[in-house]
Amino acid sequence: MADRGLPVAVPSTALFTDQYELTMLQAALRGGTAERQCVFEVFARRLPEGRRYGVVAGTGRVLDAVENFSFDEKVLDFLRQRGIVDGPTLHWLSSYRFRGDIHGYPEGEVYFPGSPVMRVQGTFAECVLLETVILSILNHDSAVAAAASRMAVAAGGRPLVEMGARRTHELAAVAASRAAYVGGFTSTSDLAAGFRYDIPTVGTSAHSFTLLHDSERGAFTAQVDSLGSDTTLLVDTYDVTEAVRAAVDVAGPGLGAVRIDSGDLLLLAHRVRHQLDELGATQTKIVVTSDLDEYAIASLAAAPVDAYGVGTQLVTGSGHPTASMVYKLVARADSDAPGAPLRPVAKKSMGGKTSPGGAKWAARQLDEDGVAMAEVVGTGEVPEELADRLLQVELVRGGKVVAREGLDAVRGRHKEALAGLPMSAMQLSRGEPVLPTEYV
Amino acid sequence: MADRGLPVAVPSTALFTDQYELTMLQAALRGGTAERQCVFEVFARRLPEGRRYGVVAGTGRVLDAVENFSFDEKVLDFLRQRGIVDGPTLHWLSSYRFRGDIHGYPEGEVYFPGSPVMRVQGTFAECVLLETVILSILNHDSAVAAAASRMAVAAGGRPLVEMGARRTHELAAVAASRAAYVGGFTSTSDLAAGFRYDIPTVGTSAHSFTLLHDSERGAFTAQVDSLGSDTTLLVDTYDVTEAVRAAVDVAGPGLGAVRIDSGDLLLLAHRVRHQLDELGATQTKIVVTSDLDEYAIASLAAAPVDAYGVGTQLVTGSGHPTASMVYKLVARADSDAPGAPLRPVAKKSMGGKTSPGGAKWAARQLDEDGVAMAEVVGTGEVPEELADRLLQVELVRGGKVVAREGLDAVRGRHKEALAGLPMSAMQLSRGEPVLPTEYV
Repeated sequence: MADRGLPVAVPSTALFTDQYELTMLQAALRGGTAERQCVFEVFARRLPEGRRYGVVAGTGRVLDAVENFSFDEKVLDFLRQRGIVDGPTLHWLSSYRFRGDIHGYPEGEVYFPGSPVMRVQGTFAECVLLETVILSILNHDSAVAAAASRMAVAAGGRPLVEMGARRTHELAAVAASRAAYVGGFTSTSDLAAGFRYDIPTVGTSAHSFTLLHDSERGAFTAQVDSLGSDTTLLVDTYDVTEAVRAAVDVAGPGLGAVRIDSGDLLLLAHRVRHQLDELGATQTKIVVTSDLDEYAIASLAAAPVDAYGVGTQLVTGSGHPTASMVYKLVARADSDAPGAPLRPVAKKSMGGKTSPGGAKWAARQLDEDGVAMAEVVGTGEVPEELADRLLQVELVRGGKVVAREGLDAVRGRHKEALAGLPMSAMQLSRGEPVLPTEYV
Repeated sequence: MADRGLPVAVPSTALFTDQYELTMLQAALRGGTAERQCVFEVFARRLPEGRRYGVVAGTGRVLDAVENFSFDEKVLDFLRQRGIVDGPTLHWLSSYRFRGDIHGYPEGEVYFPGSPVMRVQGTFAECVLLETVILSILNHDSAVAAAASRMAVAAGGRPLVEMGARRTHELAAVAASRAAYVGGFTSTSDLAAGFRYDIPTVGTSAHSFTLLHDSERGAFTAQVDSLGSDTTLLVDTYDVTEAVRAAVDVAGPGLGAVRIDSGDLLLLAHRVRHQLDELGATQTKIVVTSDLDEYAIASLAAAPVDAYGVGTQLVTGSGHPTASMVYKLVARADSDAPGAPLRPVAKKSMGGKTSPGGAKWAARQLDEDGVAMAEVVGTGEVPEELADRLLQVELVRGGKVVAREGLDAVRGRHKEALAGLPMSAMQLSRGEPVLPTEYV
């Protein structure tokens, strides 16, 4: 790994951290409060305006990040040279591993305002350090997954290809592909996402390939010669009608698909379908890919479109690029004596920043038909009737990850979670969260 | 480097690539067009709505990415196992290095619709592969730098701290810190950005530190004991007035700063300044950090605020998280014969996607007072009067990076570029690009 060139040369996840976490650690170590047992919770005070539900995504990446959160010599040298923390703190950091417990909503689950999507428990010292990296991952990935989920609802079962790598940071793109897959996308154009997460990858050609050739027909011939007639030919470089004719002429009626990347997609899809059918290419599919979002996808529901490629609006969360989750201390012990009881703490409300104290459980209450009707969040005892509807699962026990899972399981969970919500969750229009959050 | 846990395990930048670049390569290799000389250009068709100028950022990261764009065995195995490209293409990729030329606007420079911010020249094969990674970097970094620049204008010389790591992907955050610094920010809370790019880092404490203690005064005492009286105390956990009194009481009138993170900042800043002065803490600074954007910063211009911390709105480009630059083939040779002349090519306009063909130069035309009046973009000969106002510089020659530079130089260039624009560039209100783009 070259020092230069890779987008980052951070040897662990420990530096994905705001400086104040380390200075708080130093002050707490010196003040004798660092070893107090604490509970931190991750939650969003609200959903992005008009959204009906949120999607928990990134949990698997958080588990990886926690496992790799350690301070090697290079990192410690940096902290020492910059004078960021003192000698005793550096010494403490040198053997740091998170040894506490993490519970949370399993990845792919939906969430609502106030849902305690993750709960981190341990000493103040070990928990406070994880704030930034946990939030970075959950805020980014959940924002993308929420957009993906709405797009998948709008697509109504038609395949969705993630194509946004060029519209976001090169590594955010990899996480975005992953989150999109969780949210219901089918594949990605991003090879790094295929490599890293084993997501199916797709892609055939761009306008530059057509322009490279002396004629469009020449480009199609070259592509079919190399990739076979089952390939997808891009037909909007010059004139769509001529291109479709040339495409079927070159590839035969067994042509895999044509792609339309500009123009009035609704009109073009109908026209191209008609033309393809007339040319006998009745099995040839139509893929559209021009600045789509969930609304544009929905508007094509009645059009003869077989797959959608989505870029910008997916990787930027369709108007909401971050999920605005926070990581708050909600309970702590009064001393570092073993077994000292935890008591709820909270910042005083000012300007809307409320956060109820105490470690919380959450359960999804169902109506008589088994449809979710409320997100119940509470402290203390869980009411008996909710005991089998609890949402949080154990993710890390004593510093060991205990809930690693594959992306297909996560993807399946999201589908199920969505199916359990009231039908109004599927409306794209702006509205209130589809479940009220009830505190007990 | 563990296989798991790090946010990515991609051994080079070569996989930050959309699959179609490799399939186009395969088809072009087989069709005999891969070695045609080509010119690709990066430009934005428009600025985000209402913005007066764009900021080129990420160039340095692009140069690093191009240098590290190579296919090792692990990557080739992946491509082979997935059947993404054929044997001859894998063989070609195994020795791939970019050996062409890159020119572009130097980093920190401003740009306008159609400005050819980067020009990549070489064979089709070597240039087409770089599309995604170049766009990812420039689109992300330029979006953040543009927001940062507006915020710096609004702050009018007061320091700006980048605090957005928790609101974006953990590695996008590092690039965002870098872009913010280019755009005029002073420091960052993100330790990885300090480590990777040597940006000054800051940070002292969060609400959780206050809540950890049995009293606010106890928390302040612990912080001052450990970090010195020059530290920044967070005063909005409970009651601001009481907190300020306790803060000065504990730290003395030499207290470095107080931070306000919620509430009516304008009102609170005045009230806290008054209180600090009354307590004799006339040198104690006031830092504000609550969901700021360029408009909120501007609204505090007359308030006694000494520094701003900005998170969400910075890293998400203040409403425009991507710069929507594209990478287009604009000229190519008709054959791969050495010296074959390049001819302009362009996709036919449909639905507004125009892109004038031909390799372009760009110059910034000045009025008699030396103020910029137009962005002149042309093909062919450069008019004599513009010869010393050309914007593009040589970045890569024959595959070698020739224009590596430090961030402070880039930051300085941005300041200068901004100073050369008409005054209306500094207006935060929505408007047209401050320079018209003229094609000659």
